[in-house]
Amino acid sequence: MQLPRSIGLVSAQKAVFDEPITLSSGTILPYYELVYETYGKLNADASNAILVCHALSGNHHAAGRYSVDDKNPGWWDTMIGPGKPIDTDKFFVIGLNNLGGCHGSTGPSSINPATGQPYGSAFPLVLVRDWVETQKRLADRLGITQFAAVIGGSLGGMQALRWSITHPERIRHCLVIASAPKLTAQNIAFNDVARQAILTDPDFHGGDYYQHNTLPRRGLRLARMLGHITYLSDDGMGEKFGRLLRSGEYKYGFEVEFEIESYLRYQGDKFAEVFDANTYLLMTKALDYFDPARHYNNDLVAALSEAKAQFLVVSFTTDWRFSPARSKEIVKALLAAKRQVSYAEIESEHGHDAFLMEDPPYHAIMRNYMQRIAKEIAQ
Amino acid sequence: MQLPRSIGLVSAQKAVFDEPITLSSGTILPYYELVYETYGKLNADASNAILVCHALSGNHHAAGRYSVDDKNPGWWDTMIGPGKPIDTDKFFVIGLNNLGGCHGSTGPSSINPATGQPYGSAFPLVLVRDWVETQKRLADRLGITQFAAVIGGSLGGMQALRWSITHPERIRHCLVIASAPKLTAQNIAFNDVARQAILTDPDFHGGDYYQHNTLPRRGLRLARMLGHITYLSDDGMGEKFGRLLRSGEYKYGFEVEFEIESYLRYQGDKFAEVFDANTYLLMTKALDYFDPARHYNNDLVAALSEAKAQFLVVSFTTDWRFSPARSKEIVKALLAAKRQVSYAEIESEHGHDAFLMEDPPYHAIMRNYMQRIAKEIAQ
Repeated sequence: MQLPRSIGLVSAQKAVFDEPITLSSGTILPYYELVYETYGKLNADASNAILVCHALSGNHHAAGRYSVDDKNPGWWDTMIGPGKPIDTDKFFVIGLNNLGGCHGSTGPSSINPATGQPYGSAFPLVLVRDWVETQKRLADRLGITQFAAVIGGSLGGMQALRWSITHPERIRHCLVIASAPKLTAQNIAFNDVARQAILTDPDFHGGDYYQHNTLPRRGLRLARMLGHITYLSDDGMGEKFGRLLRSGEYKYGFEVEFEIESYLRYQGDKFAEVFDANTYLLMTKALDYFDPARHYNNDLVAALSEAKAQFLVVSFTTDWRFSPARSKEIVKALLAAKRQVSYAEIESEHGHDAFLMEDPPYHAIMRNYMQRIAKEIAQ
Repeated sequence: MQLPRSIGLVSAQKAVFDEPITLSSGTILPYYELVYETYGKLNADASNAILVCHALSGNHHAAGRYSVDDKNPGWWDTMIGPGKPIDTDKFFVIGLNNLGGCHGSTGPSSINPATGQPYGSAFPLVLVRDWVETQKRLADRLGITQFAAVIGGSLGGMQALRWSITHPERIRHCLVIASAPKLTAQNIAFNDVARQAILTDPDFHGGDYYQHNTLPRRGLRLARMLGHITYLSDDGMGEKFGRLLRSGEYKYGFEVEFEIESYLRYQGDKFAEVFDANTYLLMTKALDYFDPARHYNNDLVAALSEAKAQFLVVSFTTDWRFSPARSKEIVKALLAAKRQVSYAEIESEHGHDAFLMEDPPYHAIMRNYMQRIAKEIAQ
């Protein structure tokens, strides 16, 4: 059996930024670091660069492994690599941890140089447009004046969309997957329950739990359990877990009774140990605030009329977090703005999580589109 | 202007049960009390009695007011009263607080006669079939050998369904509204997040918070906020709140930013002060365990073949907690079991909560069906 080709061993790099950045909130961050990874080689005219933007709990480690024993490849390893849809034989792919993250880039758990303590509650909120600004600075640093494509799923798709509006000259293609032009009231409501779980955890200490040698594990666990429900489809969950009992019989207590409870609690527990609660809060707020039409009199067509990129918009049938209808809002606005757009609605049972999965029709669409880009830049 | 007729002032009654009850869990409760209300008059042959079963956070106070200044009528006051769809000029309507409740019937917050302290963690789990057993005992006490109808929405509909299977001779009609034959994995998942919020609240004290002079408010608040999202439709929430900002401008903080946050937090805060957390846990477990097909080799048709009642099943288009598809499962099984069933799918934007609302087409269907029952029993 031939193993699938992979990008193999990778390692992260760090870019240090001394020029201050004024964030959307008005706060100025005088210094920050971004951790990133690159896969493939930048060509001579720097025309083959791809930026991959991550979603809520993602990071810069999009592909490859850190050691030969590493059992967990990057979060989009099925998508990115030699011969894969985002082909590293052709493209130079950048994954970065967004500002405010908890995987190496400056964020709430980083040491604040002004105090020698973790930022905690002192770390400002960061919006999608702020991420795009820091991503642009990283591109400048790497000598990339125009990305062949900016690609993202979910919150990552919002970054791609923002790129196309704010820096139209700097991206040729914009791939927006399982995303939305803004959150609905229901989306915000779910985010607020997750936030309230964290904010009201007695171990949260107003965001300064680091100094108390504790973590708001209970709150973050609940937030993740809840999030997880919204990432899966009702049907997919039903097929995977149904009403399967852990022990075969009702136990009439509050321990795990159904397999779905075991799964969710395990996911929550695991996440609460490794993810930073302040980063989680910040990411959910970036989602809530994202609304590119807002500064265009709530006219998405006007906002997207700024764009010069060509678009691929992808949605998944059972995604109820960002349903196909939300992707169609983007497509409709792009068409009204007379932009070039392709749209694919993929049959899937995996809900919102489908964008992370290795599904042949989905990957075929991505592969075809990326090959078209590769041909364009080779001309 | 003529005020709508109302049942007017009502008061609760209490029934004391000294005969022990063996619950589904195997636990024996030697003594319990049920608080209930009745509206209208029981006729000479006791053929006009209607049992109204409540949902998760409901109680016995289904209609009328407790005083002339009382601003909050019973939870189904629009449905029950003189000239209303469940017409108290024709029917004798009983609402009761289920065993395990927190509005007067024996439950976790009641004093355990054995200890002189609130039951707390010592109170057993109570299942839908246990409620039906206690409701039957109340019917016996009131001299009702057959209900003209047992009616319920959501968890209340499950009680009606259980009545039809367990005591087929004792109900003529079964009205199952916005309900389901059992929970899906997703339903259970939402319930478990709500339970984990309560169980992990440091103020929960293993269920014995009464002795600690505290309440697990944080957990119960989160549970209610989450529940509330699932009671409303995405569209309904969007129409009512959209992305409306509290102050008109982004504040970049964790205080209320969007109106939907304000609404949910308020609902959560209010509920956490008045509802008992142990009762909430117990009610969600009753939902999870409900599965009448389970003892019929998972064959709902076989389970419903026990029934002798005629059925009305009602669902609401935007209800995603118990969608129309779930009601259709019941209808399909009833038809396969050769039972008489009418089905109505009501166009509504109010999601699951629609069953509580005063919607003319919905009320017309209920009214017509109840008038048919009234004619039957008058013959």
